Amino acid sequence: MSTSRLIGRLVETLRCLPGVGPKSAQRMAFHLLEHNRDGGRQLAEALTLAMEQVGNCSECRTLSEESVCMLCANTRRDRSVLCVVETPADVQALEQSTGYQGLYFVLMGHLSPLDGIGPEALGLELLETRLASGEVQELILATNPTVEGEATAHFVSEMARVQGIRTTRIAHGVPMGGELEYIDGGTLSHAFAGRQEI
Amino acid sequence: MSTSRLIGRLVETLRCLPGVGPKSAQRMAFHLLEHNRDGGRQLAEALTLAMEQVGNCSECRTLSEESVCMLCANTRRDRSVLCVVETPADVQALEQSTGYQGLYFVLMGHLSPLDGIGPEALGLELLETRLASGEVQELILATNPTVEGEATAHFVSEMARVQGIRTTRIAHGVPMGGELEYIDGGTLSHAFAGRQEI
Repeated sequence: MSTSRLIGRLVETLRCLPGVGPKSAQRMAFHLLEHNRDGGRQLAEALTLAMEQVGNCSECRTLSEESVCMLCANTRRDRSVLCVVETPADVQALEQSTGYQGLYFVLMGHLSPLDGIGPEALGLELLETRLASGEVQELILATNPTVEGEATAHFVSEMARVQGIRTTRIAHGVPMGGELEYIDGGTLSHAFAGRQEI
Repeated sequence: MSTSRLIGRLVETLRCLPGVGPKSAQRMAFHLLEHNRDGGRQLAEALTLAMEQVGNCSECRTLSEESVCMLCANTRRDRSVLCVVETPADVQALEQSTGYQGLYFVLMGHLSPLDGIGPEALGLELLETRLASGEVQELILATNPTVEGEATAHFVSEMARVQGIRTTRIAHGVPMGGELEYIDGGTLSHAFAGRQEI
């Protein structure tokens, strides 16, 4: 409840941002109005442009304003390795922390039959065509280690097996710098069972 | 660093919001793009309207798209009591939690000579004219209990004293529901010194 209609509307719409409750929305609105109107205008413009122009890459399905995203269009990347992830944020995370030089395939979700999300919603036909082209030598499965992510990885690995493509899954275990004492039981038992020779 | 120029720009501009760092900005951008484009469009529109049309009330200086804000324009409010606050957010807080029926005067800041904020930046001439009109019987000082807020309250109280207007300051002390053990020393000594007969 604001004493101004426009401010009230701004506070309400700011709540569409994840993690923003009524108090922070109000703080944001007043901050912009009192101290940074230019910032507010630029944010409005960036929002409009992104909401209207960002679509999906026709090759890897990630969010992109070009029909083929920067990574897929980059001729220096190794086209024989394909890494399957759930979201564009996963692509960013891998790009920032690994030296991976191959390409990605972004599912934009995971298999979730109860929510009506089947193989077609994840663009798996597109992936199948890609695998059938013979270009891909290794398929890296980097879906999340959740029930749905594991099920999705299993489904995709079956597709690759049919085509005779080598398939790998990123390692799961105790995070680097973590202390055993504070790691959840599932992770710990997985790490223990998956121990490797040194 | 995003793999899309428009998304990168959106993430960057989202950081003009208070409390939003690079990680939350990225999360917000992807959330809107993947799950709530309508929300993003509505936010852009609300931002544009608010940044362009919200100005200040000509009577109390609070943020308002009308030349006279809803509270000042409300003929049912008691025009003989005037409450001085620092920000529009303070007006909201008082409206939501007190049954106050008088009017407000919003300084939009506090005296801060080192930052070049003097009486004219706070519209104190406007307040002086208002006090001189004889309409105000009681002036309530509700600036923050900080060094600057106290200095501002003192300055305004002097203005009221010259006009012979009754001036009050909101009570400061131990917050309701607070435990003495965890209250800072300044508040506790203020509360102790300001003890009242029961």
